[in-house]
Amino acid sequence: MSYSSKLLEDAIDALSMLPSVGKKSAMRLALFLLNESPEKGNLIGKAIQDLVQKVQYCTCCHTISDDVLCSICSSEIRDDATICVVESIRDLIAIEDTNQFKGKYHILGGIISPIEGVGPEDLNIASLISRVKSEGTKELIMAISPTIEGETTMYYISKLLDGYDVNLSSIARGVAFGGELEYTDELTLGRSIQTRIPYSLSQ
Amino acid sequence: MSYSSKLLEDAIDALSMLPSVGKKSAMRLALFLLNESPEKGNLIGKAIQDLVQKVQYCTCCHTISDDVLCSICSSEIRDDATICVVESIRDLIAIEDTNQFKGKYHILGGIISPIEGVGPEDLNIASLISRVKSEGTKELIMAISPTIEGETTMYYISKLLDGYDVNLSSIARGVAFGGELEYTDELTLGRSIQTRIPYSLSQ
Repeated sequence: MSYSSKLLEDAIDALSMLPSVGKKSAMRLALFLLNESPEKGNLIGKAIQDLVQKVQYCTCCHTISDDVLCSICSSEIRDDATICVVESIRDLIAIEDTNQFKGKYHILGGIISPIEGVGPEDLNIASLISRVKSEGTKELIMAISPTIEGETTMYYISKLLDGYDVNLSSIARGVAFGGELEYTDELTLGRSIQTRIPYSLSQ
Repeated sequence: MSYSSKLLEDAIDALSMLPSVGKKSAMRLALFLLNESPEKGNLIGKAIQDLVQKVQYCTCCHTISDDVLCSICSSEIRDDATICVVESIRDLIAIEDTNQFKGKYHILGGIISPIEGVGPEDLNIASLISRVKSEGTKELIMAISPTIEGETTMYYISKLLDGYDVNLSSIARGVAFGGELEYTDELTLGRSIQTRIPYSLSQ
């Protein structure tokens, strides 16, 4: 495409670095910003720069934090004895949004994947093990993808904690609430029959 | 959604101001930026700020320009006698990409739309008329949306130029190349039969 301005071209090139933003979408975004007040563009530009320049990670659970310890790790109300192990910050936010978990978190930063060259040393596994050992953790809930890589990661962590007094659990897999049986994949449906739960009238 | 960091929350709020970016997409963009090198985030943030702060418009055709006159208006190769009138910069870029037009442009900045409160005085119509009068323009090609608002705008401009020695034309409407007849809307198809063009073997 031919642009009449280097400034516009630079902005379009920069915006098209974002995921799922092509040249056409980037142009649409750039022209949108020009139609809006300059304050809005300044605010967006500054927020992006602040985010990447000033970002800090919690030294305990490795989530994004404004302080040395994040608000979850420094909370006195939350249960210290239960740690939910997740792959990414996105998973942490998804679980937090359910309001069903009142323990603490640990972000691995990925899962073991030999194909992508991700080994245990690339993940926050060593810090998880030392947390479990020093904090007297009672339960480790593994909220990790049910893929071969995820299973490998869980197996690796469970091996490292062999002999320690900590219960390992994995989040329940099964047919989603509101999900149609016929559209559920065979593996999930098969497993959900194997791991069926007793039904009682008082539930 | 609950975030562990004010910095992240601000970035997500700012990014979700962009068109067709919701909170979830904004979070995906923010976490993508954090996964990339800080240089990339800085570059994107700075490009947005530069764009909105330093933007200039060509004093002649009103497109975005790095100088007082844009590269098209200041070009000596391009035909001064033909002006293509478009609604927006996006339309100018689309026509430039076809490499079929070697004249100059004039950007109206919209079309007359009483419903949206856009009157002739909100558009770059006065400057178009004075250009035509002073530059000795021979032809004005109206590349404007074929809507009622577009027709009104064209009629308004043609009325203002009544009595001047300038030819007005409108870009051809019809079935698109590669377009299927059965999927073409009735109005376009009806018009394309009315305004049929003679076919000759030498074409």
